[in-house]
Amino acid sequence: MSRFWSDVVHRLTPYTPGEQVQIPGLVKLNTNENPYGPSPLALAAMREAAGDGLRKYPDPNGTALKDALAASHGLRREQVFVGNSSDEVLAHVFQSLLKHELPLLSPDISYSFYPTYCSLYGIALRTVPLNDRFQIDVADYDQPCGAVILANPNAPTGHPLSLASIERLLSLHPDRVVVIDEAYVDFGASSAATLIDRYDNLLVVQTFSKSRSLAGLRVGFALGHADLVAGLERVKNSFNCYPLSQVALAGAVAAVEDVAYFEQTRAAIIASRERLAADLTALGFEVLPSQANFVFARHPEHDAAALAAALRERAILVRHFRQPRIEQFLRISIGTDAECGKLVAALRTLVA
Amino acid sequence: MSRFWSDVVHRLTPYTPGEQVQIPGLVKLNTNENPYGPSPLALAAMREAAGDGLRKYPDPNGTALKDALAASHGLRREQVFVGNSSDEVLAHVFQSLLKHELPLLSPDISYSFYPTYCSLYGIALRTVPLNDRFQIDVADYDQPCGAVILANPNAPTGHPLSLASIERLLSLHPDRVVVIDEAYVDFGASSAATLIDRYDNLLVVQTFSKSRSLAGLRVGFALGHADLVAGLERVKNSFNCYPLSQVALAGAVAAVEDVAYFEQTRAAIIASRERLAADLTALGFEVLPSQANFVFARHPEHDAAALAAALRERAILVRHFRQPRIEQFLRISIGTDAECGKLVAALRTLVA
Repeated sequence: MSRFWSDVVHRLTPYTPGEQVQIPGLVKLNTNENPYGPSPLALAAMREAAGDGLRKYPDPNGTALKDALAASHGLRREQVFVGNSSDEVLAHVFQSLLKHELPLLSPDISYSFYPTYCSLYGIALRTVPLNDRFQIDVADYDQPCGAVILANPNAPTGHPLSLASIERLLSLHPDRVVVIDEAYVDFGASSAATLIDRYDNLLVVQTFSKSRSLAGLRVGFALGHADLVAGLERVKNSFNCYPLSQVALAGAVAAVEDVAYFEQTRAAIIASRERLAADLTALGFEVLPSQANFVFARHPEHDAAALAAALRERAILVRHFRQPRIEQFLRISIGTDAECGKLVAALRTLVA
Repeated sequence: MSRFWSDVVHRLTPYTPGEQVQIPGLVKLNTNENPYGPSPLALAAMREAAGDGLRKYPDPNGTALKDALAASHGLRREQVFVGNSSDEVLAHVFQSLLKHELPLLSPDISYSFYPTYCSLYGIALRTVPLNDRFQIDVADYDQPCGAVILANPNAPTGHPLSLASIERLLSLHPDRVVVIDEAYVDFGASSAATLIDRYDNLLVVQTFSKSRSLAGLRVGFALGHADLVAGLERVKNSFNCYPLSQVALAGAVAAVEDVAYFEQTRAAIIASRERLAADLTALGFEVLPSQANFVFARHPEHDAAALAAALRERAILVRHFRQPRIEQFLRISIGTDAECGKLVAALRTLVA
């Protein structure tokens, strides 16, 4: 507390990111990072960009990256917004598109940053409970609102929504922005980006942190109608005109273009996820069906917080949320098969 | 305009950055970039950071960079805030420390992003005119206010304030935050960072874009009392927990540590500035005394906008602001001596 703070600072409940600890031999399955490195072509492009040209400002519009993403998604440049991570993109989305007289709708269990953005920008939030299978039912969103945001697949559950369900949601609220946060979409769900030309109220947000293995670079983007993107650009150009460094732009463009590496690594992660889900099930865990690069699981006889603490003692980090309804679940990121194997071996001794 | 925009988007007047155009042989003196490349040690550190480790999130607290900056300024880690450019840092400063019931005071002629931040966050701004020599007179700030922000040296005038003047300002408003934006301080002015341990209402903002020659990397920081930094951290952790990439952190740390390169390049720029000011004076320009990496000059017989346009036809870019009081000035960034020579030669033909 300080007499110098603006009112907003007092009312904030900042987000708590998953731990970034340095322990030798650590098996780090707590922040949904990719177990494989970034595309070698992306790394080469970044090293190339780390030169004398850095004395100059980057392209404030990130045109090369917008063009690469537009080509990759069959869209036009004006339908693409880029930023310094999808968290920054989401912050701009909340401020520029989700603050209205009626409350924003969002699942009660979802990305825990959403309520933080609402407190930062003074947005009224009405949470909509997941059903008893921890799934989003779009019929529950048939109520007056200012806008809607949900994650697909949802986090931390991993549950995917069908495009038919998303279309139903978009049609329920043709005059409200519907944001689909697709941080994990590349691991098995269907992207709503294919619906953008038919729904002017749809905004899709994606990140380079998961399927592109570039969490350490900080690049995210949004896809949607040019009017939505124009609103985002107005806020971005009132905040920081150059959010992406030359290094980030170069690396991200090369990552988008390296389709072969992207397909290979995401297929490996999907295969590991299915093996891990089977192994956990064999240990007695209930594993929610996941289309993300993590699984969400609980054991009927073992306390989740105790399991997380015991794993941590064995230098294995998983994520536990002290939150109603899900306090008995663990969110486990998909590592390499070797890392998943260490986790399963440790759990076998703990739940035996 | 769109029915999907939040109210704030409608009222914004986004900032217009200086042009980033690609013309072969361009002499680019319009955005105060450093004519010399970044520290070779910083480039090496960035290339080293562009590896498999990027699959992981960066340190959300930027501890290594905070420690390097703290050591460099004789401060503690808790007195340092880091962000994705000083523009992002300033945005967080406006939102977390400058929004109060009474208006914010700022010079009528200063960094033109300040009014934009005020419109983004709904902050009442009262501008205080520079005196008739285009200088800040701190006596003019002896009036009720919520906070104060000014640039030292001021932009686009280049005029420096003495530490004695800044102390007078800090003492005028012991219960108000006073932000000193020191983007250009390394080119000859005195940093107020030395006053931090004596004034808990002082926040100093600096950037890596000018004297560190890393405009393309996007790194900025603030120095001040731990309570001010804590307020900034609360907003930052409600916006984007990881604003700086691993590459940016590595490059910035190495840049801070390469003191020899920093001293050498800033001395070269200061020497070029003095030569350019003398050459422009010899051509009949009135050149305001500058302690920045630019000069602000007007010619009694030639229209500034016309001169800027004529220079542009010769592939030389300078900055012209269509703003009352300064519409007859040009802001000219200090390039290499060769670039400054081309500018002077072109102006000689234009004002002869």
